[in-house]
Amino acid sequence: MEGVWPQIDAGAYPVKRVMGDRFTVEADLTADGHDRVGGAVLYRHDQESGWREARLTELKNDRWQASFELDRLGLWHYTVEGWIDHAATWLRALRIKAAAGEQSAADLPVELLVGSQLCAAAAARADAADAARLREAAAALGRTDAPVADRVALALEPPLAELLARWPDRARAARCTRELGVVVDRERARFSSWYEMFPRSCGSPGVHGTLRDAEARLAHVAGMGFDVLYLPPIHPIGVTHRKGKNNALRAEPGDVGSPWAIGSADGGHTAVHPQLGTLDDLRHFVRAAADLGVEVALDIAFQASPDHPWVKQHPQWFKHRPDGTVQYAENPPKKYQDIYPLDFESDDWRALWQELFGVFLFWIDQGVKIFRVDNPHTKSLYFWGWCISEVRARHPEVIFLAEAFTAPKRMYALAKLGFTQSYTYFTWRESAWDFQTYLTELTTPPVVEFFQPNFWPNTPDILPDHLMNRGRGAFAVRLVLAATLAANYGIYGPAFELLENRPRPGSGEYLDNEKYQLVAWNLERTDSLRPLIRRLNRIRRDNRALQDNRLLRFHASDNPALLCYSKRTEDRSNVILVAVNLDQQNRQGGTVHLDLAELGLAGDQRFRVRDLVGGGRYTWSGPHNYVELDPYSLPAHVFTIEPIEPT
Amino acid sequence: MEGVWPQIDAGAYPVKRVMGDRFTVEADLTADGHDRVGGAVLYRHDQESGWREARLTELKNDRWQASFELDRLGLWHYTVEGWIDHAATWLRALRIKAAAGEQSAADLPVELLVGSQLCAAAAARADAADAARLREAAAALGRTDAPVADRVALALEPPLAELLARWPDRARAARCTRELGVVVDRERARFSSWYEMFPRSCGSPGVHGTLRDAEARLAHVAGMGFDVLYLPPIHPIGVTHRKGKNNALRAEPGDVGSPWAIGSADGGHTAVHPQLGTLDDLRHFVRAAADLGVEVALDIAFQASPDHPWVKQHPQWFKHRPDGTVQYAENPPKKYQDIYPLDFESDDWRALWQELFGVFLFWIDQGVKIFRVDNPHTKSLYFWGWCISEVRARHPEVIFLAEAFTAPKRMYALAKLGFTQSYTYFTWRESAWDFQTYLTELTTPPVVEFFQPNFWPNTPDILPDHLMNRGRGAFAVRLVLAATLAANYGIYGPAFELLENRPRPGSGEYLDNEKYQLVAWNLERTDSLRPLIRRLNRIRRDNRALQDNRLLRFHASDNPALLCYSKRTEDRSNVILVAVNLDQQNRQGGTVHLDLAELGLAGDQRFRVRDLVGGGRYTWSGPHNYVELDPYSLPAHVFTIEPIEPT
Repeated sequence: MEGVWPQIDAGAYPVKRVMGDRFTVEADLTADGHDRVGGAVLYRHDQESGWREARLTELKNDRWQASFELDRLGLWHYTVEGWIDHAATWLRALRIKAAAGEQSAADLPVELLVGSQLCAAAAARADAADAARLREAAAALGRTDAPVADRVALALEPPLAELLARWPDRARAARCTRELGVVVDRERARFSSWYEMFPRSCGSPGVHGTLRDAEARLAHVAGMGFDVLYLPPIHPIGVTHRKGKNNALRAEPGDVGSPWAIGSADGGHTAVHPQLGTLDDLRHFVRAAADLGVEVALDIAFQASPDHPWVKQHPQWFKHRPDGTVQYAENPPKKYQDIYPLDFESDDWRALWQELFGVFLFWIDQGVKIFRVDNPHTKSLYFWGWCISEVRARHPEVIFLAEAFTAPKRMYALAKLGFTQSYTYFTWRESAWDFQTYLTELTTPPVVEFFQPNFWPNTPDILPDHLMNRGRGAFAVRLVLAATLAANYGIYGPAFELLENRPRPGSGEYLDNEKYQLVAWNLERTDSLRPLIRRLNRIRRDNRALQDNRLLRFHASDNPALLCYSKRTEDRSNVILVAVNLDQQNRQGGTVHLDLAELGLAGDQRFRVRDLVGGGRYTWSGPHNYVELDPYSLPAHVFTIEPIEPT
Repeated sequence: MEGVWPQIDAGAYPVKRVMGDRFTVEADLTADGHDRVGGAVLYRHDQESGWREARLTELKNDRWQASFELDRLGLWHYTVEGWIDHAATWLRALRIKAAAGEQSAADLPVELLVGSQLCAAAAARADAADAARLREAAAALGRTDAPVADRVALALEPPLAELLARWPDRARAARCTRELGVVVDRERARFSSWYEMFPRSCGSPGVHGTLRDAEARLAHVAGMGFDVLYLPPIHPIGVTHRKGKNNALRAEPGDVGSPWAIGSADGGHTAVHPQLGTLDDLRHFVRAAADLGVEVALDIAFQASPDHPWVKQHPQWFKHRPDGTVQYAENPPKKYQDIYPLDFESDDWRALWQELFGVFLFWIDQGVKIFRVDNPHTKSLYFWGWCISEVRARHPEVIFLAEAFTAPKRMYALAKLGFTQSYTYFTWRESAWDFQTYLTELTTPPVVEFFQPNFWPNTPDILPDHLMNRGRGAFAVRLVLAATLAANYGIYGPAFELLENRPRPGSGEYLDNEKYQLVAWNLERTDSLRPLIRRLNRIRRDNRALQDNRLLRFHASDNPALLCYSKRTEDRSNVILVAVNLDQQNRQGGTVHLDLAELGLAGDQRFRVRDLVGGGRYTWSGPHNYVELDPYSLPAHVFTIEPIEPT
């Protein structure tokens, strides 16, 4: 038995699926000689003790397949068992010999005796009802005084084959050397629309906002169709080495500091910043969001300001330099003296890991089930493997988004170790070639089995070049790409919808960055992207094709500035075709060459494409069709497809 | 640590190499944060107890590589270890900070103390000489009364980096979860030229030949350049149900029977057929062949005629039918009543397996080190895994060729389980597309790591359609393909060199097949292929490019009847370019489009191609060149390439 699929790194890590998925397992079963084989996938939820099984059926070329439904959250185990099916081997030979007439007639009496023995042996393995029928068959086949032809006919009747197949001799069955795993998440793990927002900017202009103020903003977020609202850290902020506006080394009086410099005399990772409110306010906020269909995601950044209670209570959790000072964060020659990293390999690591694990449990108790984890790649990978699996064993509905803007293999390692979703390189990808190669990697095995991308056109840390100092078209293009290429996407809210594009000179960051100061956003600006965002989120909800990444396909285009792709459901009941003008500033036209079979269309069929964004309708025919897009008025088509019956 | 390569099925089976190869291992090493990492490949021969190691060096994108020489036959073990290199992390930060001037000046004193501690710690792990130097460095870096600049300069000197790299802290090193294996064969495993011949046809016309007669034929075989002479089974042949000429159900008096119906009153698998001679004659034959540079390969067919001594002595090794008769071989509705298969799952399997293992040892004791195993896929795969590994533990120079004309996954399973070489589908492949897809599969990972193809244009069992009733051109084309596409190839001798092409009507077998009768071959026929065979074997010996399969590349051709490919050594010191006319009956011309970089040529370079078969020389320039081949006079070019310096 070989080639069991899916499996990641020889079964070292589980693959990912969501609730209700049918899970398909394949394997090669080979035996020597002419023996027929059989097999089954054995599976069980981690909380179940006994195996259930689904019999494998043969595809071709010794490849076999079975599937079963994942109807419970959490970790499942599965393995494959294969055996020689002596009864099927016998039946096949008997069938051929019976058909061969004279040539094999002399063999038939012996073959019937062989069959009689096989039936008797199967009876010994069968349940009572089947055993009785098998014993009866054994007797009938072995009745040497009855005509051979009658007994052969009896042997070849389908019921006997079924009966024998049900009770194969599995005493010498081969089994996978390693049990494999599949983690089942809720559907939001695969399909989610995120909005990031600083609650402290939700107050009146110039006044530090509270969670109560942020509650008033929920309708705005829900109204655009987002279902996850992600808040940067809500904990007390340190004062020692606090950064000022625009990342100034020294804060001025009144500067609010970075939410990622966590911890002060007011508490650490399980406290709420007093200026935001109380734990009660947070719980209220979470409930109010839920009432609007929005889930709150918290930021978990495992690092401490010099004022964090841990620094005094558990100095052993931090690295100390030979001069006795605590090692602050650095990426030489850059220094982050307002932040102390935790030492995951400290001698007291058990207590530290337990404390960090407790942080998740604490917020889960407050009703939070989604966490965006800050820079997980700068913490111990072993820690994440342990912590996430412990959390999910208790709360399998919890979702972890890795903010892992790091090297590809580290990014994937975090996903293998348990992170549900991950940030990606989408933020910097620009050309058609970029998208085709990167998305192909993300949507095909093995990556698609364990890595669920979450596409962000911007974050508070990243204002990419292509958004800087450009107009609405640039934002619209990036929005359409994120929302239609990936089933999970998100925006750093007000800055994106209000087309904020001014960089702090010499940096890839926003000017007057909300990370370091309050910002008064005018949400009612008339050029806001809100209508387009609302429409795209609506389209995503209405079209199941956009809620998964597996069936993404690119279509050729003779203009590299026009990217064309489709997504569909497995049964093609929902197909979405997208054409995007990647040139964010100029009108572009060209012919796209559609893979009609992928779209479920015949080669000579006329079909109507209806643009869910711009509202246009076009009648197309055949694979080659002209598209023209203006980034200012219509940066992209998001088409549904309706075949037109030939007249 | 991930992606350790090479490995087959997560390390379940060893990869294959030959003596003297440099073995390259790669792995991904990733760590969290900014930590630098290091690693090593640990390796040892199966007979050695301690690990040796080769340090990994970084390629890019977290990929690391190391290599070592395989200087001993048999099984080797290897694994990969990786660790955090704290000293390298420190040195990197120090270097950046020293270069950053003012910005980091204040950090340097502390950094030097960190370095001093690292040197002291490394000293504790080092050998005496290095320990003294490291302690000295620790003292110098920690001398707070010395100028910082001097100490930084000392720290950044290359010798200290080397010294620290030699003694990393490996206490928490990660190691591959599974030890991997590589089997080292002698060179003939990868590069061999086989000739198959029935010794009984080597006598005077109409007289049963002997091994002594066959000895007289050795010069003929060696003279053509073959280095392996393979004999069908040389054991006593059964008389019960003996097949007659042309596979007739009943033998006539005087019919010699099939050598694969093994065993009679004269003995079984360790006996020599009396009509062929004695065991002494066999040993003499093996030595005489060796004197001519030819190794003798025996056929091992684990099956018995009804007259085999095993049938009486060990009836439990055979399957019995309910009527008490022994089960003969069959592929319903075909019956092979002259052959009893062995029951590898018999209750007495241990004794049976031991006996079969003993058959190999017996012939190895007679000087035979190559075995062609008949139909291994109809025997227990577990048996082969066990048997081959037991034989090779004692005699690592033994080579096993699997006659596994079976489904692809079974064919590959046999190679994974230990068969050195295998028969292939080459015999039936005909079009350019056939060769490109099949050879690409065979010459790229994972298959190239464990499967060594042996290409046969014909066998006593197979006269393929494309050779039937056609002329010399067809044979020449198949010969060139086999000899230049695969480093291992063979022919069923006299029938091939003498262009035998008459099928038994209605079958894919030879008429008057040597399997069932003596055949008097006229080796001196003037149209014999012998000169071409001799030339091709000469070319194979002179050109290392043809002695391995890894660096085979196909080049485009605008005529699908013209197949163009190259083989080269890793360093391109030997490059062979082949163009074959696949249309065996008509002249074909067309332009081939060469991948010049693959051939080691610049785009605008003129070069001379010299045909080692036909003797022609052509001056070519650039990638596009015209080729024309006539199957009757010159079915193929086998070119060497010489760049011409621009004048």
